[in-house]
Amino acid sequence: MNAIKRVCCFLEENRERFEEELCAFLRFPSISANPDYRQDILSCAEWLRARFVEIGLAAEILPTKGWPAVVAETPKRPGLPTVLVYGHYDVQPVDPLDLWNSPPFEPRRENGILYARGATDDKGQVYTHVKAAEAWMRAVGEIPVNLIFLIEGEEEIGSPNLEEFIQERRARFEADAVLISDTSQFGPNQPALCYALRGLTYMEFVVTGSNQDLHSGMFGGIVPNPAQVVANVIASLKKPDGSIAIEGFYDGVRDAEEWEIREYEKLPWDFAGLARELGLPSLSGEREYPVPVRKWCRPTLDVNGLYGGYAGKGAKTVIPSQAGAKVSMRLVPGQDANRIADLFEAHVRAGIPSDCRIEIIRYQNSPATVIPVEDPAMRAGKEALQRGFGKEPLLIREGASIPVVAFFVDVMKMPVVLLGFGLPDDNLHAPNEKFTLADFHRGIATSAHFHDVYARIRSK
Amino acid sequence: MNAIKRVCCFLEENRERFEEELCAFLRFPSISANPDYRQDILSCAEWLRARFVEIGLAAEILPTKGWPAVVAETPKRPGLPTVLVYGHYDVQPVDPLDLWNSPPFEPRRENGILYARGATDDKGQVYTHVKAAEAWMRAVGEIPVNLIFLIEGEEEIGSPNLEEFIQERRARFEADAVLISDTSQFGPNQPALCYALRGLTYMEFVVTGSNQDLHSGMFGGIVPNPAQVVANVIASLKKPDGSIAIEGFYDGVRDAEEWEIREYEKLPWDFAGLARELGLPSLSGEREYPVPVRKWCRPTLDVNGLYGGYAGKGAKTVIPSQAGAKVSMRLVPGQDANRIADLFEAHVRAGIPSDCRIEIIRYQNSPATVIPVEDPAMRAGKEALQRGFGKEPLLIREGASIPVVAFFVDVMKMPVVLLGFGLPDDNLHAPNEKFTLADFHRGIATSAHFHDVYARIRSK
Repeated sequence: MNAIKRVCCFLEENRERFEEELCAFLRFPSISANPDYRQDILSCAEWLRARFVEIGLAAEILPTKGWPAVVAETPKRPGLPTVLVYGHYDVQPVDPLDLWNSPPFEPRRENGILYARGATDDKGQVYTHVKAAEAWMRAVGEIPVNLIFLIEGEEEIGSPNLEEFIQERRARFEADAVLISDTSQFGPNQPALCYALRGLTYMEFVVTGSNQDLHSGMFGGIVPNPAQVVANVIASLKKPDGSIAIEGFYDGVRDAEEWEIREYEKLPWDFAGLARELGLPSLSGEREYPVPVRKWCRPTLDVNGLYGGYAGKGAKTVIPSQAGAKVSMRLVPGQDANRIADLFEAHVRAGIPSDCRIEIIRYQNSPATVIPVEDPAMRAGKEALQRGFGKEPLLIREGASIPVVAFFVDVMKMPVVLLGFGLPDDNLHAPNEKFTLADFHRGIATSAHFHDVYARIRSK
Repeated sequence: MNAIKRVCCFLEENRERFEEELCAFLRFPSISANPDYRQDILSCAEWLRARFVEIGLAAEILPTKGWPAVVAETPKRPGLPTVLVYGHYDVQPVDPLDLWNSPPFEPRRENGILYARGATDDKGQVYTHVKAAEAWMRAVGEIPVNLIFLIEGEEEIGSPNLEEFIQERRARFEADAVLISDTSQFGPNQPALCYALRGLTYMEFVVTGSNQDLHSGMFGGIVPNPAQVVANVIASLKKPDGSIAIEGFYDGVRDAEEWEIREYEKLPWDFAGLARELGLPSLSGEREYPVPVRKWCRPTLDVNGLYGGYAGKGAKTVIPSQAGAKVSMRLVPGQDANRIADLFEAHVRAGIPSDCRIEIIRYQNSPATVIPVEDPAMRAGKEALQRGFGKEPLLIREGASIPVVAFFVDVMKMPVVLLGFGLPDDNLHAPNEKFTLADFHRGIATSAHFHDVYARIRSK
């Protein structure tokens, strides 16, 4: 029996134990946003470190300026390609708690589905790679690649220390490919390999008029209204046809290529069903582009938050002192994220009347990423998914953004293979987060196959 | 010594006791918005009823569908004019409690100022009329007018049962004039007689797109954004010059008359000081009109609340399912309040794209009021203020709205005399509400003089 067959047998024999271990991993309320969970976060990191040691990897907990990272690795064998597995052991907060059907940190298995906070984002997906490594070590005695794990504890709070952490240990983390499982399949039983992500520029602006809330009867007609100003500015960001009116916003935008559009149209979409599910008559947006292009390849601008004055029940006749908006823009290849932030700021400032003050806050600002599909790692990813799921993966983009991917690709010059094992409806960041157990096991198999295939491709 | 002189002597002799009684009145936390205060509200009404009985009036507590009203009256003597004093014994909630310098229901006198919730709005002002009636009864034995008190307990929750209550007892409340003290002087030591109020149409609209909040990365570009729709609609309500863009909004608006504008310009304004106080470079609005006209005689439209999506700290990439706005319009004579509400609704509905739903809520909807300044009651009010404050009152409008005034004037056909004894900075509805004790006493004197002057004018 060859090596990968032995690995696959080992996986079959250990399904139940793997699920039990994942449940143990999920019991830690490692909520990075809340310092009250400090001890749980540290215990979770220590538990994970111990699992790496158990299977024969050198593992340690490395401090950052925030929550620590768990780093594990196989002994470096020259001649083998090096694979970096990135993931995170921290989870989102759980509120609103009353919408959960069972406690978020008491994993529940029902009809082949595992419910718990972190089930898919990202403990469940991270653990597929840990168990694949175990299978190679136990069934074969070694892994056919040099494997490094970097499992951080701050992804859900925006990875504030990650880039610096990696830069400081650049040599240690240099690899031929990065594996990340923090996305989803295209749909049930439909694996997909994602080769591009949109970037993100997230801005907030706050407009202040008078220095206190005022009675609209006594002051209506003689003072500026910041809520009106905010609405005017937001309205000015779009043209009547819905396109973005910020001067220069579309400069440099690289359109999707012909072959991509042709591929997208072949995918098993159900847009009518999706619209129905969302309670909409149909999907909308830039009608001159096919829906997948609007969703993946076109830049967007969305108001994510609007606030000012009285938002409670009933009527209050107040002219607010302040009002504001949070606005995010999804960026595509060819757009410079910092330039977009500057253009947005200039546009907003130009819309503020002289008797109001404005404050602009810049949050995330990361470019779009495209990973060359012909990279050996991408080819290995495709074949690994085919073997793990028994089905050819689709080649897709994602409309969302994962800033660390742009960092790995653009700064570290390492291709990133996004192997998403979850489903689009797994309730990431929401109540009743879930992970299909069959996908957990297919994910482990995919990871195991990846090392096998990638080692073969690279040694050719 | 003539009657009014005897009344004035009585007032001088009883200043300290009147203040003590007002403090007792203020100790009841009669917060109408909160049913937890049920017993305090009822006790407060009973306390007030007892004060009327004490001075020789027939008084009773009359139930409404909500909190009861205290009604008191002198025996009806034919040939005398009838004066209805309207006021309220309920008060606003007190939060934020930590901004109060002393407990809101433990009245505190300091440097001639009385601090307590209700000090000026409206217990302190109501009590001036009670003590004026006492002075007439005790010092003279009778009041030179037929006097009716209607002191309700629901003004701070919008007087939901008042009009029906009065309509059902129309004959009982019919009077030649209504006295209301629930406004302010023009400024310290500057009494004013207000002869016009703006009306108010208060609307809210809520826009719904998809039936749940969506991830802006996964759905940005293919679904409607209700926050953007709300901003577009709000922006469309105004033209670039700041005028209101609702079709037909200005139809019928009656401009201030020449004599009014001339009078307003003579008033002791300090607009530069006001702007400085508000942290603004200058007052703004329709520059083609003088500031007092903008403030009192021109209709306005203000966003009072704006909401949708994520308004907390930091960034959340959500496309909100719902967003909305609260908008109020101050109306002037010549504008029909119901028509304005209809025009607003039509304008907003026209701005909603076909893939969004809209809900429109109508709150208060009351017309502007103008009380003829040559009415005998108004002349009496003017003279009473002159005598009570020792200074000629200014003739002013108010930019705010008191719906019951329109009801008395338009429906009951009774002139309303607004004798405001408070100051514009008395912190109505806010922490550290106050009432200047000198104004309390001058208010009592003014009320006492009113009956004297009005009886004389009417008997001519």
